[in-house]
Amino acid sequence: MEQTVYFEDYQIGSSRTTSGRTITETDFVVHAGHTGDFFPHHMDAEFMKTTPFGQRIAHGTLVFSVGVGLTASIINPVAFSYGYDRLRFIKPVFIGDTIKTRTTISAKEDDPKRPDCGRVIERCEVINQHGDVVLAADHIYIVERRDKPGGASTDGAKT
Amino acid sequence: MEQTVYFEDYQIGSSRTTSGRTITETDFVVHAGHTGDFFPHHMDAEFMKTTPFGQRIAHGTLVFSVGVGLTASIINPVAFSYGYDRLRFIKPVFIGDTIKTRTTISAKEDDPKRPDCGRVIERCEVINQHGDVVLAADHIYIVERRDKPGGASTDGAKT
Amino acid sequence: MEQTVYFEDYQIGSSRTTSGRTITETDFVVHAGHTGDFFPHHMDAEFMKTTPFGQRIAHGTLVFSVGVGLTASIINPVAFSYGYDRLRFIKPVFIGDTIKTRTTISAKEDDPKRPDCGRVIERCEVINQHGDVVLAADHIYIVERRDKPGGASTDGAKT
Amino acid sequence: MEQTVYFEDYQIGSSRTTSGRTITETDFVVHAGHTGDFFPHHMDAEFMKTTPFGQRIAHGTLVFSVGVGLTASIINPVAFSYGYDRLRFIKPVFIGDTIKTRTTISAKEDDPKRPDCGRVIERCEVINQHGDVVLAADHIYIVERRDKPGGASTDGAKT
Amino acid sequence: MEQTVYFEDYQIGSSRTTSGRTITETDFVVHAGHTGDFFPHHMDAEFMKTTPFGQRIAHGTLVFSVGVGLTASIINPVAFSYGYDRLRFIKPVFIGDTIKTRTTISAKEDDPKRPDCGRVIERCEVINQHGDVVLAADHIYIVERRDKPGGASTDGAKT
Amino acid sequence: MEQTVYFEDYQIGSSRTTSGRTITETDFVVHAGHTGDFFPHHMDAEFMKTTPFGQRIAHGTLVFSVGVGLTASIINPVAFSYGYDRLRFIKPVFIGDTIKTRTTISAKEDDPKRPDCGRVIERCEVINQHGDVVLAADHIYIVERRDKPGGASTDGAKT
Repeated sequence: MEQTVYFEDYQIGSSRTTSGRTITETDFVVHAGHTGDFFPHHMDAEFMKTTPFGQRIAHGTLVFSVGVGLTASIINPVAFSYGYDRLRFIKPVFIGDTIKTRTTISAKEDDPKRPDCGRVIERCEVINQHGDVVLAADHIYIVERRDKPGGASTDGAKT
Repeated sequence: MEQTVYFEDYQIGSSRTTSGRTITETDFVVHAGHTGDFFPHHMDAEFMKTTPFGQRIAHGTLVFSVGVGLTASIINPVAFSYGYDRLRFIKPVFIGDTIKTRTTISAKEDDPKRPDCGRVIERCEVINQHGDVVLAADHIYIVERRDKPGGASTDGAKT
Repeated sequence: MEQTVYFEDYQIGSSRTTSGRTITETDFVVHAGHTGDFFPHHMDAEFMKTTPFGQRIAHGTLVFSVGVGLTASIINPVAFSYGYDRLRFIKPVFIGDTIKTRTTISAKEDDPKRPDCGRVIERCEVINQHGDVVLAADHIYIVERRDKPGGASTDGAKT
Repeated sequence: MEQTVYFEDYQIGSSRTTSGRTITETDFVVHAGHTGDFFPHHMDAEFMKTTPFGQRIAHGTLVFSVGVGLTASIINPVAFSYGYDRLRFIKPVFIGDTIKTRTTISAKEDDPKRPDCGRVIERCEVINQHGDVVLAADHIYIVERRDKPGGASTDGAKT
Repeated sequence: MEQTVYFEDYQIGSSRTTSGRTITETDFVVHAGHTGDFFPHHMDAEFMKTTPFGQRIAHGTLVFSVGVGLTASIINPVAFSYGYDRLRFIKPVFIGDTIKTRTTISAKEDDPKRPDCGRVIERCEVINQHGDVVLAADHIYIVERRDKPGGASTDGAKT
Repeated sequence: MEQTVYFEDYQIGSSRTTSGRTITETDFVVHAGHTGDFFPHHMDAEFMKTTPFGQRIAHGTLVFSVGVGLTASIINPVAFSYGYDRLRFIKPVFIGDTIKTRTTISAKEDDPKRPDCGRVIERCEVINQHGDVVLAADHIYIVERRDKPGGASTDGAKT
């Protein structure tokens, strides 16, 4: 689905939580095969028994990719992803954990290079079944302004 | 393979480049299926013909995950990944592009919470077959110091 | 996302079309591997050159599964899938075709076994980039009535 | 393998049962990734604990695709699949269930549009390890007649 | 399907050829992800342009696994696989090549350790669309004798 | 990574052991889907309960492919794989077993057809978490000699 939301329409503090997804052993194996990272932390149950974790832990990029993927439900055609700041791996994710992602609009800024756009910062928190935040990151979107500084509104200009 | 490298041993400016990997249509489909992100930007060739890109573009999380995965060759048992700063999606990656990752030690810092460790910042740049940087990020490692502030060296303590 | 829609609220003739998805060679290989159907119609390009199709054709179950999957965006907690009637494989789907699914509420019926529910028939048509219907089926949902025959409305009873 | 069977040769009541296949958590994850259907019924173990099922249930399209795939062992070059009628999802399939498919020739009909062919109805029943039918459907094949109404036998005409 | 064939019943020189399968880029990516072998020979199209091959070549283990898999159609319950001799990678397999496997019973031997069994050597040749043998190996089966040296026939003992 | 090792530099008896990898149910399902071998030995938990194994066992080609894949860490640009001798499936591998591969240089031979090269035999043993060898094979490499019989050293000739 598609929903046009202009820079002006983002409300700081507005938040939503995705549906949940259980992270399976399959996801570990798929992610290793997709990325080529077969480090024993993710793939060797015997080795991990000898560590404080006691079991395999998910790749950071797995939790990030799936956590971000959970939020991919509505397309905003006047926004694009610029990048992420402060991506942090806070707690391990184990096989069988169920994660959700909570996104919160945390800041809005001018975009120094694009006067017709602004930057929207969306705080992403990946949360497990115990309510613990396991990964956090600030997603930076570049979003068109409805009211362009030097001209007419673009409202309705999209088809 | 495993290679112990202490905080003191990281050299600012030292750099390495991974082997290359061609990003295939399969990687797009696998990443969509892994993350649940089936946005038409990645999955709908007809739609993308109508955009300035002209074709499907890789998920940002795909380029990040595979780009980081390319660096996963040697385990440093005295380091762990803390997170990433300034992750930026700089250029699109298309089906058939071949990427490599260049990593450069760019900074070393004290870790405010862990006196026995320091922070090593590794600049990661994912580069395509034209030499363009398509994604960049600063990887933050927490690395043990060989010489702990309040005590004996841990040299040789690892087995 | 979740949206409660009772039997009374389905409107015959209401229709929606999903976003598109390009069916790739990867989808053929994944579907063969998932189902165990490696018939040469789907897997042997040389053999298919000798047939009127001239190339590999998608499994019927692939087009059905992906076509139905494209509609899986909003959960209706008061409905469940009962089955399908008149599933027909109308035209072949080739590697590189892009499909969308158009769903239309085509009929509503009492459910003989469940007086508190009704049957909603949703016509599903999978359409390729040329506008041709390649697969059609009538999806039967069992949906709760807001006004139960022998009792109070359940409006608001769901949380 | 290939085996030519003409319309006249199908025997109503003849039946066969495939070998078995255990439906794994991997199949759930693969099917979600293949179809894009990540509904919590299939993917969120925590949510499903709160429902009468108590655990994740397989996608209907998974059981159908794998159940049909189990029957794909012998190619009949004078038959093709026309579609399915009365596809019904009868019981849930859980992770770890083992299914087989029993097919029975249940009817033979003239094909109104193709005098040289007839329709063969094959009843497909997917059965779990408890002997319960979990899915049923009537598969419709269009099959060439050996004795064409207006002409010579085609026996031996295929190579 | 299952078919009991005793040691005595194998005919030296008897041969069969499987159906074909086109080796796709997807198979390369899946095999790399399955095995962890991301060597540039298989994964880096740019690098391979600089070699005499001019393009990516399939993993030896891919051609072996798929070539052997093509033969897996009939289960012989009185035989098991002992191993392979003289496995040779004869020619490269490229993306888009279509392979078949020809198996020929090439020898029968006593089994020194199992008097009730014999060894059957099945020559496996994987052949591409040009008729070239790309991989060959001698598959060794241990097969029960119908007439056990020290006792009664087991004919009919299997159910 | 790349490391040039000439025929003269291989030391008979030198050995290394890879990191470990837990063989998961996912690997079974992926391998079946990759090769098309869905024999009940690997895929039907109910059937396997009735056998002496008591549970599903890994495909021989799975253990071989993953066991060999574990060794794929350093590229030797002056060597290529010629084939394998004496590949033996010694013990079953079950879901949840963790395997490593130990490689030992066991022999060096002249190559009758390539005077500038020699053959290096690397004994490969795949070992489970109990220390049992589950698969063994002799890998044959063709490796360039540093000192070519009829000419100058090639040392440094590679770029």
